[in-house]
Amino acid sequence: MKHPSDILDLILFIVALIAIWYSISNFNSVKRILIGRPMRTAELNATHNKLLWFIALPILAADLYSSVSYGPESGITELIGLGSEAKWYIIPITISTILLLAILIVSYIMGILAYPNGGGAYAIAKDNYKQQWVSLIASSSLLVDYILTVAVSVSAALEAVSSAYPVVSPYETVLAILCVFILLVVNLRGVAESAKIFAWPTIGFMLCMLLLIGAGFFHEFRYGFVQASTPPFGTVPKGLSTLLLLKAFSSACSALTGIETISNSVPIFRAPQQKNAIKTYIALGIVTSITLLGFSFHLYVQGISPNEHNTMLSQITAIYFGHGILYQMIIWFTFVVLILAANSTFTGFSQLAAIVAGDGFLPRGFTNRGDRLGYSNGIIALAATASLLIIAFQAHTNALIPLYAIGVFLSFSIAQFGLMKRWQRIKGPHWKVKLGVNTFGGIITSIVAIIFAVTKFTSGAWIVIIVIPTIIMFSIAIQRHYRTISNELKIDVSKTHPETNKILTMVLVSGVHRVVNNTLSFAMSISQDELIAVYVGFDDDAIHNMEEKWTEWGTPCRLVSLKSKYRSVLEPLSRLVHVIEEKEDFNGLIQIVIPQFIPKKWWHNLLHNQTALLLRFWLLRHKDVVITTVPYHLKK
Amino acid sequence: MKHPSDILDLILFIVALIAIWYSISNFNSVKRILIGRPMRTAELNATHNKLLWFIALPILAADLYSSVSYGPESGITELIGLGSEAKWYIIPITISTILLLAILIVSYIMGILAYPNGGGAYAIAKDNYKQQWVSLIASSSLLVDYILTVAVSVSAALEAVSSAYPVVSPYETVLAILCVFILLVVNLRGVAESAKIFAWPTIGFMLCMLLLIGAGFFHEFRYGFVQASTPPFGTVPKGLSTLLLLKAFSSACSALTGIETISNSVPIFRAPQQKNAIKTYIALGIVTSITLLGFSFHLYVQGISPNEHNTMLSQITAIYFGHGILYQMIIWFTFVVLILAANSTFTGFSQLAAIVAGDGFLPRGFTNRGDRLGYSNGIIALAATASLLIIAFQAHTNALIPLYAIGVFLSFSIAQFGLMKRWQRIKGPHWKVKLGVNTFGGIITSIVAIIFAVTKFTSGAWIVIIVIPTIIMFSIAIQRHYRTISNELKIDVSKTHPETNKILTMVLVSGVHRVVNNTLSFAMSISQDELIAVYVGFDDDAIHNMEEKWTEWGTPCRLVSLKSKYRSVLEPLSRLVHVIEEKEDFNGLIQIVIPQFIPKKWWHNLLHNQTALLLRFWLLRHKDVVITTVPYHLKK
Repeated sequence: MKHPSDILDLILFIVALIAIWYSISNFNSVKRILIGRPMRTAELNATHNKLLWFIALPILAADLYSSVSYGPESGITELIGLGSEAKWYIIPITISTILLLAILIVSYIMGILAYPNGGGAYAIAKDNYKQQWVSLIASSSLLVDYILTVAVSVSAALEAVSSAYPVVSPYETVLAILCVFILLVVNLRGVAESAKIFAWPTIGFMLCMLLLIGAGFFHEFRYGFVQASTPPFGTVPKGLSTLLLLKAFSSACSALTGIETISNSVPIFRAPQQKNAIKTYIALGIVTSITLLGFSFHLYVQGISPNEHNTMLSQITAIYFGHGILYQMIIWFTFVVLILAANSTFTGFSQLAAIVAGDGFLPRGFTNRGDRLGYSNGIIALAATASLLIIAFQAHTNALIPLYAIGVFLSFSIAQFGLMKRWQRIKGPHWKVKLGVNTFGGIITSIVAIIFAVTKFTSGAWIVIIVIPTIIMFSIAIQRHYRTISNELKIDVSKTHPETNKILTMVLVSGVHRVVNNTLSFAMSISQDELIAVYVGFDDDAIHNMEEKWTEWGTPCRLVSLKSKYRSVLEPLSRLVHVIEEKEDFNGLIQIVIPQFIPKKWWHNLLHNQTALLLRFWLLRHKDVVITTVPYHLKK
Repeated sequence: MKHPSDILDLILFIVALIAIWYSISNFNSVKRILIGRPMRTAELNATHNKLLWFIALPILAADLYSSVSYGPESGITELIGLGSEAKWYIIPITISTILLLAILIVSYIMGILAYPNGGGAYAIAKDNYKQQWVSLIASSSLLVDYILTVAVSVSAALEAVSSAYPVVSPYETVLAILCVFILLVVNLRGVAESAKIFAWPTIGFMLCMLLLIGAGFFHEFRYGFVQASTPPFGTVPKGLSTLLLLKAFSSACSALTGIETISNSVPIFRAPQQKNAIKTYIALGIVTSITLLGFSFHLYVQGISPNEHNTMLSQITAIYFGHGILYQMIIWFTFVVLILAANSTFTGFSQLAAIVAGDGFLPRGFTNRGDRLGYSNGIIALAATASLLIIAFQAHTNALIPLYAIGVFLSFSIAQFGLMKRWQRIKGPHWKVKLGVNTFGGIITSIVAIIFAVTKFTSGAWIVIIVIPTIIMFSIAIQRHYRTISNELKIDVSKTHPETNKILTMVLVSGVHRVVNNTLSFAMSISQDELIAVYVGFDDDAIHNMEEKWTEWGTPCRLVSLKSKYRSVLEPLSRLVHVIEEKEDFNGLIQIVIPQFIPKKWWHNLLHNQTALLLRFWLLRHKDVVITTVPYHLKK
């Protein structure tokens, strides 16, 4: 205890232990406090869980809009090796990004028109490709992307705060896990409530960014559009290659990750759902374009250079506003918006997982609605995997950014080509225009995806080549499993009917006492056929003793004593089951009746050997026997 | 993936996941490889698990002998504020420590003579005090002490290595946990085998220390016993107080922790057990005394000062041998001996826990012998709690050293006063001498304990005041629980006999398929009284469908349909149970028959809702119903 922080750690440790103990002891009430009262299925279609479009906008926008702060910077960083002369490329690159954004939004709007039930790339692919694996590429890259988004956004949010407040730095991992836990709780409570809590900060961040852009123009009207620090425009620096330009463009495209959120979330909009979702897309596209373009333009005018320890956003804010309250607001809004980016993916992940699980490609548990009608298992799975990533990478997840951009553009491309096939098949009004748009979009997004994969291969893109096929393999195995079982369980109701069997009942006894009396009473009440009591002793004395007591008790039924050389009840019991099953004249079923103590307090379980539990587990797994547990509720 | 270490971390992470998966899938074979074949109870008394005294010596000595390296240093560090003039006090302080060691060894030898079955302080206290709490103080302080020893020794071992090889530093916690895991496996394999592996390094460390002392004398014969760096002898520095001297003495006494290991482990010696244990004590006392005195003397002659980043052992080794191979050997032997100190406590902890549990003060599971005849639960509990401490303190456990010294001296004192009472009661040959020795020893160890408690109170000794009484409280609660149950379960064999009851059997059905057919077949085979099928539907359509199918199937028994508004099977079912129990004319027992899928591969469980498991758990806990599980083994 040399340092006060040791004592603090110890106190925190003890508090954590007490909290865990309390939560286990009072699981239901703690759950009620955190999650809220359970809701009826009938409440599902009530409007209060559905969102107005201008409330959905900030919630679903956080993922896309938060990347605005680093997109242009990522792009220009690729070219900075060429010197100051290359800085003007930030403007054409940003314009290309915005064009791509426009194309993507138009494509996604058509996706919404075609598939109003959400599911985005997965729904589109499923409908247009006969090959399952194409839609599984879309779903698994999106699911992985969501997990990465949570890990990356939360870690980046904490890095933002800790670069402003270094005191936070050693606690980044713990605080990141805490943030994920809070997001988990909020999302288990339900979408509507998370909206009410979380709608305003994103609007605040948007206003801050727009204010920053306005301040930029004000600054430029005052000091001129070409200032002392403005680099030359239109020069072609030495060493510029097409590959380098494409690399810069693809990096800048990291500003577009998160655009699919709205199309995946159509069902959470208030009616008319499609119209409202489209409104949201258009509004978001306009705000994002203005922000990207204005921001890039000012970055060019001020000739800002990338700096590892100071983001370009932070640099330009400091030029216009100094390090005062507006700077603080932008730092904290960045934090909040990154957390919200993580938040918006909870809805997306759990709904996509439910759809994919409904098709039998993921465990069926993902389709279950929890107490608050959200897909709790998906929400919990997302929080758990993201937390694992955060722990494994100690909250330094920047390295994962290339991974998630590649997944996004992969699913973009699949969606576009899927829509292409749809227009060719269904046609309809203006189908050639739509086909053209999606073909163009598909080609562009494929190129971006390929460039990402090639240029970032050694930076971690190779992981995608391992993870996505693994998930697809599992998905196919899962579906096969469900199909096999469904076939196995099918019966012909006119032919197959329940048939009675001979039952041999074995009661496990450990002595002569009230629990044994209780268990034996039950067994004698049900057994019509054969009933034996089985005693397992560790040595001859114990067995002799037991047999004497049994006789003294008047031999309520036949007692079979088994000796266990290895101090295990399981081994002699399973030998006995085997012997009986092998008997020629035995063609019935074995039922093993096991008594179980139920203490008043849960921790009292630690004081009793959990042999019954282990036995039940092992016997059910390895033998074809029926296990009956007769509880004995201790009075004290 | 900017740094290669990220990729390394990722690869390690994936390897760990695969290893965990493999271990779960093949639990039994992995267990066999790690632990070895199970052993018969009859093998318990075979000699090969009992130790020859000179093999027991290094194993049981590690705990005591490893503290030699830091004992004198701790003592003199307390006085160093008084300047170089105080350095000669290291010699009288070490002499006092050795006298105390001699007293303790003599006392413990008498303890062995009186109580040959081990248990040390606890056995002595239990036999001589009517008050349970006195022996519980001894047992709980020893148990806590063992846990701390493992955490502190393993952490210190890794700190030793990482100060020589800084590259290890960031992995200290993980490597410490790994060391504990290796110790766990080795101890689960059994004592004899750990002896064969672990006897030699401690002997090596002893030889190194003796070589160091020899080299010191050689050095002094050559350069004189009073060298340029030798501080003055016999001066009384300004500011020296009795309290300060006592504090220094008590710190130096940390060299004596671990002395109780032998007396607790008498049963592991080969016959004649007492004689061999005493031989070991005497041999260990002589070696330790020589080492302590020689080491301190050379430290004084060379005028070594304590240095935070360089232990005095390391400093003096460098003077005699430089930083060559002997220096490396001493570093690595320190590492190994500290790991062995942790190892020796595994035997001590599990045997003490078994004895205390046998008296009903700890969960009875501690008395079970595992596959290899060791008390596995105690071994596992020790490894788990020590690992938790290591994680909570991030392998920086120096702060815990004062805690464990106080526990040790507390139990020393209880043992001594217990022996005092014994001599007064039993008398026997030379009882007055023995009484005198133990009285003197008891007074000295109490003083040391009190000085520890007072001088280290703010450094963490206060924790002992929380932890030990908490354990005692739990121990007493546990014993009370066992007694209550034992009374509750007792029956009069002549009066109480099993009685048959009316049984209402409910079969949970989820549709009409093979599993339901199978379950119903069993239920119809056993039910003599009433049988109903219960279906829980989430909406009216589902219920209507089910009822139609049931009729189509020919209504094998009455079907009760329940609607669940909250999408839970539990709630309507427990309502139904309640309604039946409240019925006036019902005075029987309810049996609920639940089908359970058993897939071929364990991970397939993730693909099926574990409703059956949750239901069984909840109903057994909260209702007085019998639960029968009918397994359905999937063929694929």
